[in-house]
Formats: sequence, structure tokens, C-alpha cells
Amino acid sequence: MEEFYMKLALDLAKKGIGLVNPNPMVGAVIVKDNKIIGKGYHEKYGQNHAEVNAIKSATESIEGSTMYVTLEPCSHYGNTPPCVDRIIKNKISKVVIASHDPNPLVSGRGIKKLRENGIEVVTGILDDENKRLNEVFMKYIIEKIPFVVMKIAMSLDGKICTASGHSKWISCDKSRDEVHKLRGNLSAILVGVNTVIKDNPKLTCRIEGGKNPIRIITDSTLRIPLESNVINDNQSRTIIVTTDRADHKKAEELKDRGIELLFTNSKENRVDLKDMIRKLGELKIDSILLEGGSQLNFSALNEGIVDKVQFYIAPKIIGGVNSKTPIGGLGIDKLSDCFKLKNMITSNIGEDVLIEGYIDK
Amino acid sequence: MEEFYMKLALDLAKKGIGLVNPNPMVGAVIVKDNKIIGKGYHEKYGQNHAEVNAIKSATESIEGSTMYVTLEPCSHYGNTPPCVDRIIKNKISKVVIASHDPNPLVSGRGIKKLRENGIEVVTGILDDENKRLNEVFMKYIIEKIPFVVMKIAMSLDGKICTASGHSKWISCDKSRDEVHKLRGNLSAILVGVNTVIKDNPKLTCRIEGGKNPIRIITDSTLRIPLESNVINDNQSRTIIVTTDRADHKKAEELKDRGIELLFTNSKENRVDLKDMIRKLGELKIDSILLEGGSQLNFSALNEGIVDKVQFYIAPKIIGGVNSKTPIGGLGIDKLSDCFKLKNMITSNIGEDVLIEGYIDK
Repeated sequence: MEEFYMKLALDLAKKGIGLVNPNPMVGAVIVKDNKIIGKGYHEKYGQNHAEVNAIKSATESIEGSTMYVTLEPCSHYGNTPPCVDRIIKNKISKVVIASHDPNPLVSGRGIKKLRENGIEVVTGILDDENKRLNEVFMKYIIEKIPFVVMKIAMSLDGKICTASGHSKWISCDKSRDEVHKLRGNLSAILVGVNTVIKDNPKLTCRIEGGKNPIRIITDSTLRIPLESNVINDNQSRTIIVTTDRADHKKAEELKDRGIELLFTNSKENRVDLKDMIRKLGELKIDSILLEGGSQLNFSALNEGIVDKVQFYIAPKIIGGVNSKTPIGGLGIDKLSDCFKLKNMITSNIGEDVLIEGYIDK
Repeated sequence: MEEFYMKLALDLAKKGIGLVNPNPMVGAVIVKDNKIIGKGYHEKYGQNHAEVNAIKSATESIEGSTMYVTLEPCSHYGNTPPCVDRIIKNKISKVVIASHDPNPLVSGRGIKKLRENGIEVVTGILDDENKRLNEVFMKYIIEKIPFVVMKIAMSLDGKICTASGHSKWISCDKSRDEVHKLRGNLSAILVGVNTVIKDNPKLTCRIEGGKNPIRIITDSTLRIPLESNVINDNQSRTIIVTTDRADHKKAEELKDRGIELLFTNSKENRVDLKDMIRKLGELKIDSILLEGGSQLNFSALNEGIVDKVQFYIAPKIIGGVNSKTPIGGLGIDKLSDCFKLKNMITSNIGEDVLIEGYIDK
């Protein structure tokens, strides 16, 4: 039964996707005499925690009840008062928790305080599921740099366009919808300036009611055309990541149009991606969808900034020694040096196959 | 219950894999009073059909019984007498069949004769499953050309080796075992001469007790080194497919060593693959595993000789604009001209993902 109620709490937590960053998604269910008497989730950044929403929703007294909550309740003052105090005050007798708070500064403190106040605490129920759901938070809270998802759409034979450059559309409608959902759920989207020059994309989330991601463009010398959509459409915040090789006049023009410039170190005449990711973390950007071309994708892997990959594979074969592949650059030399993936999961998205996995660092 | 017994018959049929080509795999189960009283399958080319083996295995009188058989019983004399006569003689009262005989010359005749003799006949039970199991037979019996399976082992980003040519091993042990099983189950294996020059492979089935496939090498001018394993190891029949551009002296030397030469038309200075496939069909080769390099793979797709593809995808990323991809050549120009796949199936083989599908012709 513990897993059953925790699963409900996780399903509630998911409702906060894309709305609570850089906070975690958290859900809570209150059960008394085998009856659910309250439930809630963290709905929006800066607002009530899941525990408080669950307590507020209760249809009867919660004294003597059990709370199932996906993350260790907080014991410190943040945007809101400590949830632990609220639980104690309401005389909840048992708290079942999926995951400990990953923040080393506070982890275990909430649990300790609950136990000191005579409340029974069980932990680790659906811990892995919760950590996967909150993979962005789990990384950002500890490392303070964003969780990066590299997204690829390719043919089964590993091509992202034909030899003549034709790429619209390799993946099916449903796959493209999934990518737009992902854009809405992550904080930012990252492309290289060549993609902007070639495709002039909007980089918005085209799902009804979806939140547009912050648009980040690497452009070491500011070659971006001033007439680009991302510069003129006011659809979302746009950050151009550049270096001291940037054209100063162009920099001023961009700033005048409300575009943010983020200066990083240079590395082999390109933006130093490690420096970039650190600085984006300082801007409280917790997650990035990388929709790069094959050079940027390789550089991102090579610099170790990619956490997760998503390959949407279409039931098509393109062929061609000159057709572009998803990961270009120099590539690795020996097979033993390849980028290894772990926890690969396969699913069907329309007629495509989606393979997801994590970079084994 | 019909599907239950037919599933048993299909499982029996599978035992003939690799041993009955170019015959179909067939299984039969005889049931009386809800009890299985006989079962059998076609065990080896030229020997008894499944129906006869099932009848012979019967532990009691089969009069009044029901036979479940995966393919319409034959009504003509081939290597063995007609199974239909045997069924009639033994007074079996009902026959349940998965698939009609696909051979247009005889299809339906066995069923007709059974019905004319007062035997109840039901057809179409697990028809699709049987056709998939017998995909090689179903093509060969009608078109008289081999069923071609193109096998690829690649990284998730679509590379078959690193930029420096390193490819051992991209796929995991279990995937390589699967490929050796496939070599044993299909009649022949096909590679280009460049693979022989580069890797000097044996092209054998390294599964205990497995049957080595016939080795077919395309080599339009006979560049194959005389010291190659495939020429000297006597592990299996070797056929070199060449053209009138072949070196005559080398041709004689190869023949002296027991190597068969198959002459085909030229097409763009290469072996004409369509002509080749027709001639291999005439040699009663019903199935080919294509383990080509990226040029041969593209040519085979482009000439329309590929029926099925198997992509073993390793949880690795290699990258590199100069790393080889599975399908090379010119490639297609417009996305609408790509080779489309249907009935894609995904499975996990060790740490790899296998994506299989059929070319939509």
C-alpha cells in the first residue's frame, strides 16, 4: 500500500512540471483509516509546498493520519515556513517519504526533527522513480549548473538531413509534439548561431498554454542576423553567449533590442561551454534542451556538459556519405574512449522510436 | 483453444529453422478429446513433412481427431507423397490451418481436397505469426529470389566505426551471438570485396552446432586476395560474384581452389545486384544476410534487393564528421524519396537495442 499511495503522490508531483523550476516537483497524499483525506502538490515556484496544499485540502481532521510525500519535508525557512513544523502542529503520526533532500546542507534534518517529535518516518519508497522525475532538481541543487538534455531527430541510419540538406521533417508529428512539450518543461533551449542563420527558428513551445523556454544561442563573434526571429519576436527572453571576439557595435545593437549578452572564455575560437554552463547556472537556469547542429552536439559531449540524450529515430533510411549525422566534430578516436550511455529506455512515439539514456560520466 | 494448439504447432515449426531451406518451417499437433496425441515438425530438407511426423508420433488411433498444422497440407508429389492423402486415409475429422500455401500453383488445392473428403477445415488461425516466421519461404516460393536481411551494428549516433576506422566491437557479446545465430538460420551471407580485403573475415556461424552459411562476395574485378580466409579455410561453399571485367587468370586460380564464380552484368562498374539476386535464386539460395560496408548497403537498398533490416544499436556515441555511417553512397536527395520502413519492432539484446523492420516497397 505504501507504494500505491506514493505513486499517487508522484502523479500529483508531475503536475508541477515546467512550473516550479528550479524547485523540485513534489506531491503529497494524506491517508487516514485507509481513506485519502487530503492531497496536494507544489504548483508554482514561490508558492505553497505540496505538504501545505495537502493539509489545506483535508476534508476532515488529519490528527493521527499518515502523509505520503515524494521529498523530505523542509525544516528551514525559504519562500515559505518549514513544512516539518506544520506536520508536527497538525499531529500527523506517520510520514512516508520517497527521497531524502539531496541538498547536503539540509538533507536528513527534516526527518530528524519529525522523529524527535515522535512521528514515525519511513523513507526510500519509490525513491528511484522520484529521482528520475526530478533529475533536473537533483543535479541543480547540488552542482548549481543546469541539467542538459541533448535532443536528436534522425533517420534509422543516423542522418539528420539528406546530402542536399533537406531535413523537414525527419520525425513524425507526435515526436515533434513531444519536443515542444519538452521545450515547455525545461527552462531554456540552446542552439548554435549556425542553426539561427540557416533555419531562422522561433525556438518557442508550440503547445497550447505551454511556457516558452529562455532562448540561448552560442555565437562567439556575434554573427547572428539582426533580423532573426529570436531577436525580434519578443516571444521569450533571449541570451546570446559570446566571447571577447564579439563585434562591439553589434553587441550594442543587440542590447538595444533587449537581448542579453553573456560573455564567456574562448576555447579553440568557440564559446567555452564549461564556462557558459557555470554562468547559466548562476542565472538560475536549471535545465537546458540542446537542439544543436552536429558540431555543437559534439563539443557539448566533449566538454562533458550533457546529462541526458533523446534520440527520436524515424522509420526511414537516407544514406549518403555526405549526409549530416547528429554528432560531428572530430569524434572519438578509439572505441574505448566513446561516450557511454546508461539506463537506456526505448519507447514508441507515433511511428518513431525514442531512445533515451544518460551519459555515464 | 484453436490459437493455443496452433501456437504449439508454431513452436514446433521453429525447430526446423536453418535446416529446411528452401522449404517452409511447418509444425503439426494432433488433438483428440482435448488431449494432444501426436506432434511433429518438418525437421530437415528432403525428409518427412510435419503432418507425417505428427501422425507417426501418435500414441493412439487418430481417427476422429483434429490436426493443427501451420501450413496448408500439400496435395502433390514432391520429395514425399501428398500429406492430404495421409490425413484422409487416417480419418482425421478436422484440420485447422494457419496459412494457405503461398504458391499460386497449388494454393487452396489441399484444402479443397480435404473438404471434398468430408473433413472440416478452418483456416487463418495465427496466419500473421506463421507468415512472419516463414518470411523467407513466403517470398522465395513466389518470386524465386532470395529474401535479404541487411544487418547493421552501429553506435546510437549512427556510426559503424571511429574516424580512425576502429570498429571492434561496437555491439555487445549478446548482439554478436544473435548475428551468428542469424548466419546459421539463413542460407547465405553477402559482403563486398572491400570487407574481405580490410578484415579478412571467416563469415562462419560461430554457434555450437550451427550451420555455416554459403559465403557470397561481390568483386567486380576479382581483387580478392588469394590468401583470404574465405578462399582457403574450406569452412563453407564460397561464391564470388563478378563481371566480365574480372581478371581471367585470377578467375582460373580461384576455380582451382574450389571457389565458385558467378558472372553478372555490370552496373556503373559494379556488380549488377538485381542480376546477381536473380541468379542466386536460380542456385536455390532462398535467403541472404547482408553484412555489407556502407557503399554495398546503399547499393543494395537502391537496387531494391533488401527486404528486412536489423539495426543493433549500442549505448555509445562516437561522433565525427569523418566516421563511417551504415548507409553511404550518394544517399537520397529529397526526404520524400527515402527508403521507408514498416512494422518496426524494438527489443533489448544485452545492453544494445535492436530495431528491426521491413522495407516498404
